Amino acid sequence: MENKSFHVHHSAFGAFSSVVLGKFGKGGGFVLNDVRPPSNNIYIGYKKDGNIKLLPFCNEVENGAEKEFTGEISNTNVKKSIEFFKEEDIERELNWALDKWSVGDFSFSIITPFGNVKDPMSMNKIEKKYSFAPVIFAKITLDNRKGNSDAEMIFGMEGPKRRISETTDNLYLGAASERSYGFGIENCEDVMELSRLDILSSWADGNYQNHGLGRAPSLIFKVPAGTLKTYTIALATYQAGDITTGINSGFYYSDLFDSLEDVLKFALENKAYYINKAEERDKELESSNLNEYRKFLIAHATHSYYASSELLKGKDGRPLWILNEGEYIMMNTFDLTVDHVFWEMKFHPWTIRNTLDLFVERYSYYDQMGMSFTHDMGVSNGFSPKGYSAYELPDLKGCFSYMTHEELLNWILTGAVYALKLQDEEWLSKNIEIFKQCFESLVLRDSNLDGIMDVDSERCRSGSEITTYDSLDVSLGQSRNNLYLGVKTWAAYVVLNCVFINTKLEELSDKAINRAKKVAETIVSKFDSKNNYIPAVFEDGNTSRIIPVVEALIYPYEIDYKEYVSETGMFSEFIKTLKTHINTVLKKGCCIDEVSGGWKLSSTSKNTWNSKIYLCQHVIKEILHIDYGESEVEWDRVHATWQQVGCSEDGATDQVNSDDGLPRGSRLYPRLVTSVLWME
Amino acid sequence: MENKSFHVHHSAFGAFSSVVLGKFGKGGGFVLNDVRPPSNNIYIGYKKDGNIKLLPFCNEVENGAEKEFTGEISNTNVKKSIEFFKEEDIERELNWALDKWSVGDFSFSIITPFGNVKDPMSMNKIEKKYSFAPVIFAKITLDNRKGNSDAEMIFGMEGPKRRISETTDNLYLGAASERSYGFGIENCEDVMELSRLDILSSWADGNYQNHGLGRAPSLIFKVPAGTLKTYTIALATYQAGDITTGINSGFYYSDLFDSLEDVLKFALENKAYYINKAEERDKELESSNLNEYRKFLIAHATHSYYASSELLKGKDGRPLWILNEGEYIMMNTFDLTVDHVFWEMKFHPWTIRNTLDLFVERYSYYDQMGMSFTHDMGVSNGFSPKGYSAYELPDLKGCFSYMTHEELLNWILTGAVYALKLQDEEWLSKNIEIFKQCFESLVLRDSNLDGIMDVDSERCRSGSEITTYDSLDVSLGQSRNNLYLGVKTWAAYVVLNCVFINTKLEELSDKAINRAKKVAETIVSKFDSKNNYIPAVFEDGNTSRIIPVVEALIYPYEIDYKEYVSETGMFSEFIKTLKTHINTVLKKGCCIDEVSGGWKLSSTSKNTWNSKIYLCQHVIKEILHIDYGESEVEWDRVHATWQQVGCSEDGATDQVNSDDGLPRGSRLYPRLVTSVLWME
Repeated sequence: MENKSFHVHHSAFGAFSSVVLGKFGKGGGFVLNDVRPPSNNIYIGYKKDGNIKLLPFCNEVENGAEKEFTGEISNTNVKKSIEFFKEEDIERELNWALDKWSVGDFSFSIITPFGNVKDPMSMNKIEKKYSFAPVIFAKITLDNRKGNSDAEMIFGMEGPKRRISETTDNLYLGAASERSYGFGIENCEDVMELSRLDILSSWADGNYQNHGLGRAPSLIFKVPAGTLKTYTIALATYQAGDITTGINSGFYYSDLFDSLEDVLKFALENKAYYINKAEERDKELESSNLNEYRKFLIAHATHSYYASSELLKGKDGRPLWILNEGEYIMMNTFDLTVDHVFWEMKFHPWTIRNTLDLFVERYSYYDQMGMSFTHDMGVSNGFSPKGYSAYELPDLKGCFSYMTHEELLNWILTGAVYALKLQDEEWLSKNIEIFKQCFESLVLRDSNLDGIMDVDSERCRSGSEITTYDSLDVSLGQSRNNLYLGVKTWAAYVVLNCVFINTKLEELSDKAINRAKKVAETIVSKFDSKNNYIPAVFEDGNTSRIIPVVEALIYPYEIDYKEYVSETGMFSEFIKTLKTHINTVLKKGCCIDEVSGGWKLSSTSKNTWNSKIYLCQHVIKEILHIDYGESEVEWDRVHATWQQVGCSEDGATDQVNSDDGLPRGSRLYPRLVTSVLWME
Repeated sequence: MENKSFHVHHSAFGAFSSVVLGKFGKGGGFVLNDVRPPSNNIYIGYKKDGNIKLLPFCNEVENGAEKEFTGEISNTNVKKSIEFFKEEDIERELNWALDKWSVGDFSFSIITPFGNVKDPMSMNKIEKKYSFAPVIFAKITLDNRKGNSDAEMIFGMEGPKRRISETTDNLYLGAASERSYGFGIENCEDVMELSRLDILSSWADGNYQNHGLGRAPSLIFKVPAGTLKTYTIALATYQAGDITTGINSGFYYSDLFDSLEDVLKFALENKAYYINKAEERDKELESSNLNEYRKFLIAHATHSYYASSELLKGKDGRPLWILNEGEYIMMNTFDLTVDHVFWEMKFHPWTIRNTLDLFVERYSYYDQMGMSFTHDMGVSNGFSPKGYSAYELPDLKGCFSYMTHEELLNWILTGAVYALKLQDEEWLSKNIEIFKQCFESLVLRDSNLDGIMDVDSERCRSGSEITTYDSLDVSLGQSRNNLYLGVKTWAAYVVLNCVFINTKLEELSDKAINRAKKVAETIVSKFDSKNNYIPAVFEDGNTSRIIPVVEALIYPYEIDYKEYVSETGMFSEFIKTLKTHINTVLKKGCCIDEVSGGWKLSSTSKNTWNSKIYLCQHVIKEILHIDYGESEVEWDRVHATWQQVGCSEDGATDQVNSDDGLPRGSRLYPRLVTSVLWME
């Protein structure tokens, strides 16, 4: 990997916690109930022949903490040899589950096991423990087979202060911060704990005396001359009791484990299971025939997705799924749910159902036109009041206005994909009245019956609705007469048609497909045949060219009603027109950035969103059958560079500048898992 | 008050949490399970005629959070008039419970109620709720009686993100951070919540739309033209479940209240009780005839003391008292307990008993000479293993070595003061065997029978014992043949004599007083009659002059055996010698710093400890009857300046440089409550 200095989240399923590591010189560490990178010193390396060498995850090698404490009476004053490995000597490999740094005979990796997760309602307790243990793993290796002297490796970090041998009757060694997070390994004679005020100085001095006041209790691993040693460490979090408000709930795992130590014990006893699970994922991604950039982008997105995941226990102990919105920490933002549906359908579709049900139960509302849904369910572990999001406000025309129309589409599209792709007939039949109400509400928002939304929700008061592209310019931001939203409305009618076919509601299915036809007809009528594109907004002479016009084609395709998105099917002209549009806009100076060569969603904005790029790339290639050949690899390279360089301190980032790839919002974001579509 | 820009802790009894505020330009806010000042923006001020004026507790008036979020689509762009009050216009008053800032017609105060706390084992539930509700208060006032236009006041801070109207059915208004801390007031028409991404800009713009994504939900208070309005706000914390390790325990209050909202409700319903309690304390300190500097030093110390206090529920729900060690967060450091005894005897003596009992039960040990006690009980909510402190290490001669001898003295002295001053005969009789064992152990540590400790604990291995003055030079640091520790040993024998008299153990009482005589005789024999002082260490020709030689006279005095510390009593010569010593050393260039004019504990070290200065001042004046007249006021002024200027960002600080008054350790420290002795 060319660019190797960038942060990655490492997170257990649903634990809303991460170990963030990867940007050289910036430290890292555990973060709980948030995704923002800490900047604690992390100690990973080895000592041999008196010299300590570390991966560059410290801000400094000498804290001077002991001197600070002891004032005139300092105990240590020995010359130290402590240095960082040079960046150019370090190799980094980010696979789907594995994040690995290698330098010479030494390597360190963090392993984030993930995979299919069954509906917890159908699990027994032991299955739940395996699935929801809030734990990830690390491996540390030194090949000292050619060495003539004994060596030692270190793993430790600032944050934890106490040694877990003290709370596990010496069965485990490691470190913890109060009761909430830490790391450990089975006690054995090749491993010891070392806790000191200045951990590196003491280790350099050969001072192995554990100190209760130590600031970063670490593990020291022996690697005798002539041996190669690998040690596997568990890294866990644990938070007991209620942690949310609005709805009072705690972590689902908190009923399965008694304490942090209990999690570590379970994790270490079952580490083979977890490592194997991680290796399965790594093999799966490796064996895909995607280019290296796409493999990276999928792996990177996956790490950020799980960093934002939070499985709570709701009423009666039933699972309550929250996917937090990256740096903004909004809960179950519906605009993200609709994009996460591809990921969740692959690995844990019950989380989609869980979210859709809570949207109906608590986060739906009725305006003058009928039913719709809120933008989100709250922020920072605070569930917002029934019927209201944290995000939306009245009297605005831009950011923070209501997304009534788009969230209505999101429930329809997400619900249809869930129900029809998974063939969950029971859920579909239980929710058919909701689909009907949504259909009714959707139709009413088009007062002139041209298929395009033209009625703003009364909740906007003096304002007007916006789309999920809230911080983009009018080309994608405004809802009324918006091309992107028009095609998405078309898709909603199409999938409603499919829903009603599946529920044998013939009249409604006809009505839905007729509405879809009307939308298609209107959009085709907006085609500018002189310039070969469809303007982004059908108002005020707008001439923006946008890529996300094709975004919504994915939904009929995903539920296997491919004839609707075919150039030879019922919507032949519509699909052909969209294809022409794409062929027009995907050019340098239009929707290909002239500076970077990367994709820009709108010709009139530098603000481009990576999750949507990936989604549209997939649609354009697989549904519209446009093959850009080697250009695709170059685009992927640019998009990977944005993440690895421009956003290196920000984890997976959605909103970047299309020219320099620098982050402009939606940092540390889960939505980039739309890239999983490439694996289909 | 001349110097008004300094941080002060504001903390409820036993809640181990503070609102830190006071250093201009440094922000402040809530801190939980720690004492270190946060640097969040705090918004306190008013808006009148479109102009906002704030106390200077913000780092900035414009976060730009909304612009950051909305990117190209910003909603607000109005000119703002936001400014800080000038420092010279602000008056500050720190009373015992009240901390108040006034400027013109506006004032803001934080009220920290405290007072006598009965043994919780003898309280009913409602008494416990009153005593242990983790809450303090604030008052905000604007006199707009002469105003022609309506005004509004603001109170808010970064940290909280959610509005508590949402979790209290609109009964209360305020803000909270997750489930753990926040502030509130009864809902009424003159008050509203305002939550915005950029709170000040929105308020300046007259935008009162609450936003679920707001970063610092604030209270806005109406002050109509022609009125004077004062509003009282409750500030509370709440942490449920176990929070410690080693011994698993949670906050004592967590069984008394269900949630943060429950605490706020109780606090507001009973605010008159708390405000009254605070006013009683303020009157008590005001009516003392201490000079203004001493009043300040007592008030400042009191705030830091409660900031470190932590009442847990231990086994069977019984109270478990922890006094944390300021910035070091060590738990029940015994060297501090022995100095806190004066404070705790006045307000809540059961906390002393609680600590002594836990020292016996879990933190005592036996070395080659007999029983002693650990330095502390752990650090940062982690109880250390049975029989071991977090602090002490073997094989050292300086800081972090064992304090076996001194901790033995500390149990004897603290136990005697508790039992004899309170006349708790039940406890005394239950612990008489411990006193006997301590006596036996103490005698054995003096192998040449001259009364002075000369045997280091075997726990030191190759090292040697130190005193509580761990970061001072050898004059006070080394235990063996140490004058300070010698007098403290004398005091221990004296109080043991009193203990044995009270328990009618005549033989032991005689033996104890004989040992005391031997110590006194030895110390007198070390008197250098040429230079009129006693050297600090009876070794290696040491010539340091120290003040704390007289520290331990306080213990016989406190238990009302004043004849032992009288120039005309049994120890006449000893006391006279100490008095001569003090008269010699308390001179400029010796133990009065030539630069600052403040006290320095040792002639050979710049490191001086304020808590010990206060204690020795009291002993010298009240026991040795040396009256320094106006010099005392000047010394007090210097010592107050050290806290207000040199240590302004560090809260009450124990260790400072005697020349420039800058902090050198023991910041945010509880021990300065030795100053309460001045009130006797």
